[in-house]
Amino acid sequence: MNFRFAERAQNIRPSDIRELNKVVAAKKLISFGGGNPDASLFPEQELKKAMEAVLQKPATAYQYGITEGYTPLREYIAMEYMKNAGVSNATTEEVFITAGSQMGINLVTKALVDEGDTVVCERPTYSGLINATRPFRCKWTDIEMDAEGIRTDLLEEALKTDPRVKFIYTVPDFQNPSGGVMSMRRRAELLRLSETYRVPIIEDAPYAALCFGEKLPSLKSMDTTGSVIYLGSFSKVISPGVRIGWMCADKAIIRTTSILRQGVDLHSPVLNQMLVYNYLIENDVNAHISRLTAAYRAKSEIMIAGIRKHFPREVQMDDPKGGFFLWMQLREDIAIRDVLNRAMDQGVAFVPGGGFFANPGGSNCGRLNFISESPERIEKGVAALGEILRSLY
Amino acid sequence: MNFRFAERAQNIRPSDIRELNKVVAAKKLISFGGGNPDASLFPEQELKKAMEAVLQKPATAYQYGITEGYTPLREYIAMEYMKNAGVSNATTEEVFITAGSQMGINLVTKALVDEGDTVVCERPTYSGLINATRPFRCKWTDIEMDAEGIRTDLLEEALKTDPRVKFIYTVPDFQNPSGGVMSMRRRAELLRLSETYRVPIIEDAPYAALCFGEKLPSLKSMDTTGSVIYLGSFSKVISPGVRIGWMCADKAIIRTTSILRQGVDLHSPVLNQMLVYNYLIENDVNAHISRLTAAYRAKSEIMIAGIRKHFPREVQMDDPKGGFFLWMQLREDIAIRDVLNRAMDQGVAFVPGGGFFANPGGSNCGRLNFISESPERIEKGVAALGEILRSLY
Repeated sequence: MNFRFAERAQNIRPSDIRELNKVVAAKKLISFGGGNPDASLFPEQELKKAMEAVLQKPATAYQYGITEGYTPLREYIAMEYMKNAGVSNATTEEVFITAGSQMGINLVTKALVDEGDTVVCERPTYSGLINATRPFRCKWTDIEMDAEGIRTDLLEEALKTDPRVKFIYTVPDFQNPSGGVMSMRRRAELLRLSETYRVPIIEDAPYAALCFGEKLPSLKSMDTTGSVIYLGSFSKVISPGVRIGWMCADKAIIRTTSILRQGVDLHSPVLNQMLVYNYLIENDVNAHISRLTAAYRAKSEIMIAGIRKHFPREVQMDDPKGGFFLWMQLREDIAIRDVLNRAMDQGVAFVPGGGFFANPGGSNCGRLNFISESPERIEKGVAALGEILRSLY
Repeated sequence: MNFRFAERAQNIRPSDIRELNKVVAAKKLISFGGGNPDASLFPEQELKKAMEAVLQKPATAYQYGITEGYTPLREYIAMEYMKNAGVSNATTEEVFITAGSQMGINLVTKALVDEGDTVVCERPTYSGLINATRPFRCKWTDIEMDAEGIRTDLLEEALKTDPRVKFIYTVPDFQNPSGGVMSMRRRAELLRLSETYRVPIIEDAPYAALCFGEKLPSLKSMDTTGSVIYLGSFSKVISPGVRIGWMCADKAIIRTTSILRQGVDLHSPVLNQMLVYNYLIENDVNAHISRLTAAYRAKSEIMIAGIRKHFPREVQMDDPKGGFFLWMQLREDIAIRDVLNRAMDQGVAFVPGGGFFANPGGSNCGRLNFISESPERIEKGVAALGEILRSLY
């Protein structure tokens, strides 16, 4: 049968990262591609113990649950875990368990964005923001960043002239893909603009805990009017395979997004929510995060050292302050797709930049993660990339 | 902040069933409400063993996975499990792992339905179909059923006159909520109409395996043109809390829905997919299903006996042939909401019928599940309901 697809399903294409993952797995490439945490750092033994506790309660773990989430986990996040983001006054009703922050973006867009509305994001931005919002047929206004993060002067222009902006999406800490951190001054200014123009902010914070230096306060912790929709995730700090994240937001947002979710997948698996809850209450998760951060920092230094050694000096790259990623900007006439094809022939993968641009751009950019591979493979991969780049400069 | 919600998010309301679940849990009511399987029948020990095997592979179980699903599980469903639906020629590429069949409905709608298009369903239909399609702002044409299922004469009229029908949604086996079974003649006629008018069918089959008598072939097994999108689920036969189901459909549908899913939640938890896979390969799932079916059949007989004893004879109810549900049609002037309120005062819950009608209707109808409660509580609950109904007739 020839199917008549909806307009939103025309011209869609698979995410570069997820398609790349398939090739990487099949060919065992050195992967600076997707944001897969280092599997050797999963808290395997602790999760095993937590799972044993979960399986003592099969009638709950295997049964349908409440759409908003497993209540003890929601309570724990509201009362305890949000303190990591500097928020000490969240209530259980303001916390909604999602299937990772990707689902949070999807549900907020579904709740707020009509066809033809505008979504504001950074330039470049997380590719998942683009994938989640595209089917709603919105317009994107992507705002340039500098060393302090999103250019709030340009943002104010956009908010002034476009009444259809429905939300501002930002990754203030260790931005994906650029690795940048928003300065305190810009955080305050962003909140002021959100309040003045009555446009909510999605603060996507999957990497915020993985900070190599001093942590800045989250936007949510500075929010006095309820305009910040905070998206948290356990994917980077515990396990992405359990698919558990959360939204911490005004009750009106939680109510609407949770009703919309009833039509999507009912709720997150109770089993997985209980697993994360039992892990959190039985372990010092912040000590685990410190171990992760130290390991990832060490890897970032290996990658940076390799880059200094092998890459042409003209390639622009900032040292990472946390998170997973380094952003590589090549000379404008160099096509990153060609670099990627040559790199894959040499057994190395990374993510080409175009997928991080809501509006055209990024043809000379690429994202490298420094966290998935072993030190030896990082060195080998960077050396191979460097050789390709040197031949082009 | 006052949020400006999208049009699709106006006038939405929570699912009756999911809201009822909260009250049932809080007040410990006898529940003939949601479709919660009997937790005492979960294959707890077998799942525990399966989980032990899964946790031997933490680097896979806790890591990101492929959007289409864990390959061994997709292969197993294609090669083995679909045989239960009479399908022996499915390929791995035609199977996509979803978070229950609810997500299958959502993704197919997202792939096919534009604003103003028509979705055809049965009258009454599964409330989750209504919840999943409402945000897409479609029109519903709901077709009456008789003892043989959907009235294909009325369906043909609808297909003839409305070129915007994008799919036909049906639960041919133990329909939710009516409990009905579509006859062989109607199955063949439905397929003919689908092919003639080039409108795909969603065959939602969560209860198909739970058959008290002779099983009829699935629509998918009779499908020669690829027009049937089969939605399977492990929620009713293994566990709803793991949230694992699948779609078996033409590759064009799998491709489009899986790309759309990348923007929703990336993929189902790898942990849960491996759990189901290990359970399936290490156990005789059909023997387990036979035990479930025998237990549920015995419960249905207890409920039917109670209904014969306590309900006024004028209340129309068919004996169930499988599945989870009995459908109760009261005299047209009796408001089921009043009956429900009085029943909840007596400690008994069921689902009022209105939520199963895509277009207005059902104010005198209700759905009873016969599977959640113990025999004693079924008898007690039916007696209490009977007393209320007798006072009204």
